[in-house]
Amino acid sequence: MPMITPTNGLRVPEVRIRDDFWNDYSELVRQTVIPYQWEALNDRVEGAEPSFAIRNFRIAAGLQEGEFGGMVFQDSDLAKWLEAVGYSLANHPDPELEKIADDAIDLIGQAQRENGYLNTYFTIKEPGKEWTNLHDAHELYCAGHMMEAAVAYYNGTGKRKLLDIMCRFADHIDETFGTEPGKLRGYCGHQEIELALVKLYEATGNEKYLKLSQYFIDERGRKPSYFVEEWERRGRTSHWVQGTVPSPNLEYNQSHLPVREQSVAVGHSVRAVYMYTAMADLARLTGDAELRAACERLWNNVTRKQMYITGGIGSTHHGEAFSFDYDLPNDTVYAETCASIGLIFFARRMLQLEAKSEYADVLERALYNNVLGSMSKDGKHFFYVNPLEVWPEASAKNPGKHHVKAVRQKWFGCSCCPPNVARLLSSLNEYIYGVSPDENRIYAHLFIGSEATFELGSGKVSLEQQSALPWDGRVRFKVSLPGGGAGGAKFALALRVPAWFQSGRPELRVNGQAVEYRVENGYALAERTWADGDEADWLLPLETKLIAAHPQIRADAGRVAIQRGPLVYCLEEADNGAPLASLAVSADAKPAERFDADLLGGCVVVELDGVATDGAAWSDEDQPYAPYRPLAKPKPLKAVPYYLWGNREAGEMSVWIRTSQA
Amino acid sequence: MPMITPTNGLRVPEVRIRDDFWNDYSELVRQTVIPYQWEALNDRVEGAEPSFAIRNFRIAAGLQEGEFGGMVFQDSDLAKWLEAVGYSLANHPDPELEKIADDAIDLIGQAQRENGYLNTYFTIKEPGKEWTNLHDAHELYCAGHMMEAAVAYYNGTGKRKLLDIMCRFADHIDETFGTEPGKLRGYCGHQEIELALVKLYEATGNEKYLKLSQYFIDERGRKPSYFVEEWERRGRTSHWVQGTVPSPNLEYNQSHLPVREQSVAVGHSVRAVYMYTAMADLARLTGDAELRAACERLWNNVTRKQMYITGGIGSTHHGEAFSFDYDLPNDTVYAETCASIGLIFFARRMLQLEAKSEYADVLERALYNNVLGSMSKDGKHFFYVNPLEVWPEASAKNPGKHHVKAVRQKWFGCSCCPPNVARLLSSLNEYIYGVSPDENRIYAHLFIGSEATFELGSGKVSLEQQSALPWDGRVRFKVSLPGGGAGGAKFALALRVPAWFQSGRPELRVNGQAVEYRVENGYALAERTWADGDEADWLLPLETKLIAAHPQIRADAGRVAIQRGPLVYCLEEADNGAPLASLAVSADAKPAERFDADLLGGCVVVELDGVATDGAAWSDEDQPYAPYRPLAKPKPLKAVPYYLWGNREAGEMSVWIRTSQA
Repeated sequence: MPMITPTNGLRVPEVRIRDDFWNDYSELVRQTVIPYQWEALNDRVEGAEPSFAIRNFRIAAGLQEGEFGGMVFQDSDLAKWLEAVGYSLANHPDPELEKIADDAIDLIGQAQRENGYLNTYFTIKEPGKEWTNLHDAHELYCAGHMMEAAVAYYNGTGKRKLLDIMCRFADHIDETFGTEPGKLRGYCGHQEIELALVKLYEATGNEKYLKLSQYFIDERGRKPSYFVEEWERRGRTSHWVQGTVPSPNLEYNQSHLPVREQSVAVGHSVRAVYMYTAMADLARLTGDAELRAACERLWNNVTRKQMYITGGIGSTHHGEAFSFDYDLPNDTVYAETCASIGLIFFARRMLQLEAKSEYADVLERALYNNVLGSMSKDGKHFFYVNPLEVWPEASAKNPGKHHVKAVRQKWFGCSCCPPNVARLLSSLNEYIYGVSPDENRIYAHLFIGSEATFELGSGKVSLEQQSALPWDGRVRFKVSLPGGGAGGAKFALALRVPAWFQSGRPELRVNGQAVEYRVENGYALAERTWADGDEADWLLPLETKLIAAHPQIRADAGRVAIQRGPLVYCLEEADNGAPLASLAVSADAKPAERFDADLLGGCVVVELDGVATDGAAWSDEDQPYAPYRPLAKPKPLKAVPYYLWGNREAGEMSVWIRTSQA
Repeated sequence: MPMITPTNGLRVPEVRIRDDFWNDYSELVRQTVIPYQWEALNDRVEGAEPSFAIRNFRIAAGLQEGEFGGMVFQDSDLAKWLEAVGYSLANHPDPELEKIADDAIDLIGQAQRENGYLNTYFTIKEPGKEWTNLHDAHELYCAGHMMEAAVAYYNGTGKRKLLDIMCRFADHIDETFGTEPGKLRGYCGHQEIELALVKLYEATGNEKYLKLSQYFIDERGRKPSYFVEEWERRGRTSHWVQGTVPSPNLEYNQSHLPVREQSVAVGHSVRAVYMYTAMADLARLTGDAELRAACERLWNNVTRKQMYITGGIGSTHHGEAFSFDYDLPNDTVYAETCASIGLIFFARRMLQLEAKSEYADVLERALYNNVLGSMSKDGKHFFYVNPLEVWPEASAKNPGKHHVKAVRQKWFGCSCCPPNVARLLSSLNEYIYGVSPDENRIYAHLFIGSEATFELGSGKVSLEQQSALPWDGRVRFKVSLPGGGAGGAKFALALRVPAWFQSGRPELRVNGQAVEYRVENGYALAERTWADGDEADWLLPLETKLIAAHPQIRADAGRVAIQRGPLVYCLEEADNGAPLASLAVSADAKPAERFDADLLGGCVVVELDGVATDGAAWSDEDQPYAPYRPLAKPKPLKAVPYYLWGNREAGEMSVWIRTSQA
């Protein structure tokens, strides 16, 4: 199996997105989301719950008096914002934004203690109680996010200040935790620092950080449980409620078993995928086959048995958690935005372990559907929960669905998701390619218009990718070799064959001529000596497909979803009336596609034949139940991309639609 | 509109059930449920949560040392048991049981204070805090249940001791609550005493109790809210959680509005229907037209928009509550047993207000399905929640369905339901007939084999009813007149035309000859001068029907239920395999019926053509989603009566089944 060097090895500026679809998003992040979130972090968004994040740092730095505000992990919101800024500055220099970020970093430095410790909650509210409640208090989690910010900001600007701050904190953590006598043998209640320490190692080359990450991963789940012992030491209390609480549920944060013995995804889904991400990093960097096998088992369980068609994960809001195999209710779903982002992180690390198209398929599914759909067109409103079926009145009046919002919200008291979206979208250029210099192979995982430069064993190669996805599936790659590349460059362009392409083998043309190729692990290998100016066309005509779910997924029985390329579609009340449950797709429906430039900023809509229960023919308005007689009448249905739902008036939405025939 | 005197006016022994189907149940209650529950009340059921009920009374009576145990309303379990015993003794004298009950009543007397106050929780655990937390503490609720027990025991045995105890307590309550200066202007957080005081009035003739009931009903929902003021006085605390709590949710116990302004059922469903029952009683006894109109509005809302086909009510376990119109999820349902019993109480009172078959239809629906289904064949296991769809693994592993049990439980920590079933089933003889002496009319609401005697204006009449429901729909009434009834007796036998009879007009035969009749409010009037020995046959041949739900009930869209006579059917995994979601009823299915003497104690099973998704034909076990292609293959389906579900190995169950055509 080919081992691939990390895409992290690519300097960030070496892939630049040049793509109509995605540029809209990166511009939205740059021009709207980042400034808006800065206002939010400073409690200046009217009508939104205050963040307190900056205020906490000012108090911790001694610049202001006051109480700590917000969640115990509030520091991480500033971290995620700074991380997004780092990515954004790498692609779009912006001195004004950089000045704001530099000032924020100065503030962070002022809030750091002599010994490197940095956490505004404990500095302001519970000094002396540091590291006494790893289960609840998110100290290492916040540290991890700030490390990720430090690396991104260093990569984006070349400025080391935050990196140095976080290395000092990492050194302090390393002195505090470990198996050596006198150290705490703990680990965080919310995994995050494990993947962040890998990034810190990759940015600094300091192996201490890699080993510390390994320690946290290997220690987790050891018996007797650190969390149970810590709970006893704390007097059985919790950060979250008054009084005493039961012994911690170890499945919740995946510390019920040593990680390498885990096979089934359980517990809080964000914690899980952040941990799996670090596990895959460590498996790659240390060649740990056992850890890799665990990653593969967990990947298979998550993506084959516990993932929604939108790439959402987490079937229950109780603990924001996985439930069990094939339990994927559409209306009481959780499918948290952050969990899909974490799944994307995990997928990317799996791609680095081994280039298999399956990983990129899932990455793309989560990106184009769950994650994109979490943000409004204006970049200022967000879903935390991403349902596949919404009845607004039920969200309002049935408490079991209160977590399912029918409209995107401004900002959340626990506002992990919006900055997570920002940092993903502003670093999307890192997800497009993988490169194996030794094999002279460039993997194109995602079809996103971009300019990229690669250092291969055979020399330097540049690729310009042109793509009109998600609306059109023709992708073109233009090869540039330095100085005209006399004699050409021998390398393989490995083009992903997407799982959504279902019409035989896609056509590959080089300079207009169809060429044969072999497929390895789901990638078409275009292996040749490429000349400067060569063009490779990868033809993936998009077709609308009706999709069925595995028969064990009870929630989707007798239903179909609509998918076109990577986009999942949905019905909205705005187009189809209500109740949507009264509609069914005709079994022999031939979907028609049409680009509607005026709808939701321009999108391909899918129209197809259906039937509707004729509500007016119901026997007696006062009768809830009556002898069955067929009441279906023809009704054309109109579907829009899922990621655009909820951008009009609040109404019903449904991804899975009944079929007129079982 | 005919006003009918209360069936309560009938002495209990005057209707005796003689019916193969129902005798099994009354015998089960007498021989198993009542003795078993006595063991439970005494904490002698191995493996079941202790009740503490008797122990609490012994401690309160000073006969034993110890702490209060169980719920704050634990006294009511003993009350409901005594009420059931009262009904049972009326029909089946049993000196041994009567001795046990008499001793328990002596114990209750010993636990009563000088001033009449009776509540073991406050006597043992919080003396001095009486009446300070009406919202949470169920004092008046427990009093109400003990009043009901007192009346039933008095009616069943002629013994006044408990009646006297409860009159003393009622007098104390009357001195404590009211609009007069110096009295508390409160009312109970859980309605129950309102209907109990009506019974106490009817048993004693003391109008004070009727007026006290009126006071509680009229005071409820007045602004400013007593519960909010009480919460402030209490320091914003709650009985249920530590620390302070938000202001009470007044919808929860229907105190958000004065009761006569209410139109939509909200909040805790048992509280609601107990209150509506008392409202209907008061409307009847006081001729209060405004109150009656409120009862009719609330009846219509509950039964037309918020009731499951099984007669279950309460769509969410959050607050065991109504949610909103047409929100009737089958799998996260609540449909508490006690709520359906309360609905039966309400229906009976509405029948007393006005004989409309609709009330009896709902009563029968709730009785034969939700309520009967709550108890196991052995009488020792009970459902609290009565789902219409069960996936046992989801009940175990998805916290949103933890309340939905796949198997009946032995006894509950909060065990309101089992004794409620016992008291209903042992008083079922009171639900069969209504009589209007002035109009010389006997209403047959339920078709249950029985012997009954009626005092009409025209004299005394006895009826022997023969019925083989729910398996066969031929019902016969035999008239007996005292002393051979020379000259006959002129009266109308008003026979309910059940809503489930859908084949035109049922045939009525008198002494073998078909006779014409007119229908009034859903009752066929067989009005004539009856002779001793006359026989009236009311022919209601049972046909299996596929039933559809109102198009606004989204959970049932594209699905049908199966009903035969009053019985709703369901599919079980034991007969049909799993997942049940993969099955669909053929749109043109012709149900076949067959009595299976060996199945579940003997029942009519329904077999019909269906289709099943061929799981083996699913493209790739590892793919959760794949392009749709029809995978249906023919599959015969077998349905069993819903009330019998869950009496075999734990498995899936579903009432609403997909149809093969929309």
